[in-house]
Amino acid sequence: MYNETVHKRRGIKKTTILKKTLTSLTASANIRVRFDEVDSLQIVWHGNYVKYFEDARAAFNRKYGLEYLNVYAKGYSTPIVNMNCDFKRFLKYDEEAIAHAWYVDHPGAKLILSYKIFSKNSEQLIAKGETTQVFLDHEMNLQLNQPDFYAEWRNKWL
Amino acid sequence: MYNETVHKRRGIKKTTILKKTLTSLTASANIRVRFDEVDSLQIVWHGNYVKYFEDARAAFNRKYGLEYLNVYAKGYSTPIVNMNCDFKRFLKYDEEAIAHAWYVDHPGAKLILSYKIFSKNSEQLIAKGETTQVFLDHEMNLQLNQPDFYAEWRNKWL
Amino acid sequence: MYNETVHKRRGIKKTTILKKTLTSLTASANIRVRFDEVDSLQIVWHGNYVKYFEDARAAFNRKYGLEYLNVYAKGYSTPIVNMNCDFKRFLKYDEEAIAHAWYVDHPGAKLILSYKIFSKNSEQLIAKGETTQVFLDHEMNLQLNQPDFYAEWRNKWL
Amino acid sequence: MYNETVHKRRGIKKTTILKKTLTSLTASANIRVRFDEVDSLQIVWHGNYVKYFEDARAAFNRKYGLEYLNVYAKGYSTPIVNMNCDFKRFLKYDEEAIAHAWYVDHPGAKLILSYKIFSKNSEQLIAKGETTQVFLDHEMNLQLNQPDFYAEWRNKWL
Repeated sequence: MYNETVHKRRGIKKTTILKKTLTSLTASANIRVRFDEVDSLQIVWHGNYVKYFEDARAAFNRKYGLEYLNVYAKGYSTPIVNMNCDFKRFLKYDEEAIAHAWYVDHPGAKLILSYKIFSKNSEQLIAKGETTQVFLDHEMNLQLNQPDFYAEWRNKWL
Repeated sequence: MYNETVHKRRGIKKTTILKKTLTSLTASANIRVRFDEVDSLQIVWHGNYVKYFEDARAAFNRKYGLEYLNVYAKGYSTPIVNMNCDFKRFLKYDEEAIAHAWYVDHPGAKLILSYKIFSKNSEQLIAKGETTQVFLDHEMNLQLNQPDFYAEWRNKWL
Repeated sequence: MYNETVHKRRGIKKTTILKKTLTSLTASANIRVRFDEVDSLQIVWHGNYVKYFEDARAAFNRKYGLEYLNVYAKGYSTPIVNMNCDFKRFLKYDEEAIAHAWYVDHPGAKLILSYKIFSKNSEQLIAKGETTQVFLDHEMNLQLNQPDFYAEWRNKWL
Repeated sequence: MYNETVHKRRGIKKTTILKKTLTSLTASANIRVRFDEVDSLQIVWHGNYVKYFEDARAAFNRKYGLEYLNVYAKGYSTPIVNMNCDFKRFLKYDEEAIAHAWYVDHPGAKLILSYKIFSKNSEQLIAKGETTQVFLDHEMNLQLNQPDFYAEWRNKWL
């Protein structure tokens, strides 16, 4: 995905434990389950929650000026390098839900968001998750330090 | 999608009835139904047959040198402007099928493919369909005549 | 999909030309294009418009009491047997659109809906289409006449 | 997802650390990237790797007799309660890959599979992941002990 040597240096960096803290920067998106998102057990197929997390991430990016085309214009793309999801309950066809994303504070050159999806009807937690994005420049080099625009964004919002 | 004036001229052109003929140029792709492609009635959701048609079209394009990146390098993109599907029977989870695409001969500046999907097990016809693609240059102008590369392609294969 | 003999009788029936008329029974759904619905040409992949049509159909079914579980409880399922789509312009990532569905009056044992999708920003027509559904009882027999509940529904609304 | 009281008891159980070991029980599936699986950055959208993991899991289930309909006939469903994915490199349109699944030995009432996806062309690791499934009976009660059929399956294969 990015230059091999950089990749190795990143491996070393991983040994440092860096503190992650949930912040109050948050946005949410309304969901209504589509017919094609439900599987033969009549519940939402687990892979489709990834789309609901992305709805919340898109709402977050719009609210805080981190739309991918905007970030691209600054010289970077932000691919997801890790995704983790816990499924607690089921959503069914036509059910309405709300997906929240929170910004997770972290000193590294990463963009971490935490997600929770709640049923609108029962208010129960359906699923939660986390995604980690890294910064690549347009030559596909992994950024080991926070890009300037991102450091400024953090100064503004945190 | 393309320049307004060109769009109107195309409208006029539509009134001419041009003969379509199925050819023997054909390719096929093997399908195995994924769990997420099946709906709550335990059959493949109708919209997913569009993916199977595309598997056959991709096989056709590979076999006859019409891959979209190849066409793009010639100066054109070929968006689908019409899609028609008839659903005759159901595919179920994990069922294997074969999707065929045939080139439809047509004198206009269009690329028409016809599709049939058969169950491998029962050999029954599951679905059939047709897609029509047009040629846009990189300034998004609709081509009213067959691009040279496509006219040559037709001379070679028909 | 349904009993072979019934299938053949349907073939005969197809030769009768039955008048289709657009009605004022209509419903609409708001769309916002998801990142995963956009293809490598940076426009919505044509197969994803099928989901937007389904959003409009679901809104129609909710508004007029034809939800699939409701219809199922009456003794029927209503699989789509034909789908036709015309693509006029492109939607892009994060673009907002509105999908409309209209009921098409037809004397046969069919449920026909007509669709149009407009960009919210430009108000231009993006795509239009039509779906035809038939009625199967729970033994998968194709209904050659309108089921009673559907004839009553038509009396109520048309 | 399952009975509340059972859910709490499961919470307690989580504090016990149970050893996980990768086994040699494995199966694999061939992948060819579809056009609709690629995003506007011309790489596979991260959520679509979930489908490739499922291709490998389906191959595993077929090979070792754990197809979901088979498990259902034994009295259980096996929903995914956790999914974790690491994305290392990118797959592109039409690229061929192979997805492997390995059974992870674990003494609890869980079914854990580990996944790796490799590019066929470059042989590089593209993504890896893990899914955890639990056992629910048909009354949706979470099973705290391995169901008999699953304990027998483990005796047979491990």
